[in-house]
Amino acid sequence: MITVLRLGHRRDRDKRITTHVGLVARAFGVDQLLISTNDDGAVSTLEDVVDRFGGEFTIKSGVKWKALLKNWNGVRIHLTMYGEHIDDALKKIPRDEDVIIIVGSQKVPGEVYGLADFNVAVGNQPHSEVAALAVFLDRFLEGDGLRREFDGKIKVFPTERGKKVVEHR
Amino acid sequence: MITVLRLGHRRDRDKRITTHVGLVARAFGVDQLLISTNDDGAVSTLEDVVDRFGGEFTIKSGVKWKALLKNWNGVRIHLTMYGEHIDDALKKIPRDEDVIIIVGSQKVPGEVYGLADFNVAVGNQPHSEVAALAVFLDRFLEGDGLRREFDGKIKVFPTERGKKVVEHR
Repeated sequence: MITVLRLGHRRDRDKRITTHVGLVARAFGVDQLLISTNDDGAVSTLEDVVDRFGGEFTIKSGVKWKALLKNWNGVRIHLTMYGEHIDDALKKIPRDEDVIIIVGSQKVPGEVYGLADFNVAVGNQPHSEVAALAVFLDRFLEGDGLRREFDGKIKVFPTERGKKVVEHR
Repeated sequence: MITVLRLGHRRDRDKRITTHVGLVARAFGVDQLLISTNDDGAVSTLEDVVDRFGGEFTIKSGVKWKALLKNWNGVRIHLTMYGEHIDDALKKIPRDEDVIIIVGSQKVPGEVYGLADFNVAVGNQPHSEVAALAVFLDRFLEGDGLRREFDGKIKVFPTERGKKVVEHR
């Protein structure tokens, strides 16, 4: 089971970014997204996507992250440009435990680095937390994340030109 | 040489997302970002990152995308959830030509699908254009993108806990 925890403190600025974090998590087959701030907008946007495109993905906002991380029974992975390079970190992360992936915003509280079992850098350059999450999941799941099938009302079929979409009602 | 073309029409909504697209492009070693709308804010934010963290990355906004794509001498790759699955597309894309990667926003003009040589889906689920670009670049460059060295005033060294940053003035 994979959980993504979004730490975000600048609500207006990070609102759309949090939605993108959620879209990435769902598309790669993550089970749940927890958001530390209250963000009903992101929750309803993402629930609407689940309703139309399927999947078992759940979203909850206003989560007490500190207690959650302290009591987490599994592996805690914090994505940060200051961490260990992903090439090195991926070799060490166990694959047989529940995983929580922590995705910060610009100011992450210092104690997150200590609470995490792994601080992982998807490159040590300023980057996007959306991108970091996507690349981490793509590599962690060894490409399987993007090959999942969803059971939604709307189904998109791959095609070289244009759009091929089937919608059930 | 790799160029990223950002098509974005909802300026307020997509502003931060365009900045994230630029951060991803730079972090993976893309040479230039072209933005179809006028967006001085994104340009100056990204130029500031280049100034501090290094690299040869250039950014230009207000670019006439249609003429650019028509006259492009190289491979045009459009990232879209409606496209061919990345697993299949990557086998066909030539590696010895200049590449332009087109990253849309929610409404992409229909003719982009026709102008592109490849319409590539990083999964056929609703997703983030930031994530799509990151995963595409990570796979296209076979992981080399994240191993680049930059020559910036600020250099971040990978570390398992906390932050290790050297700043030259």
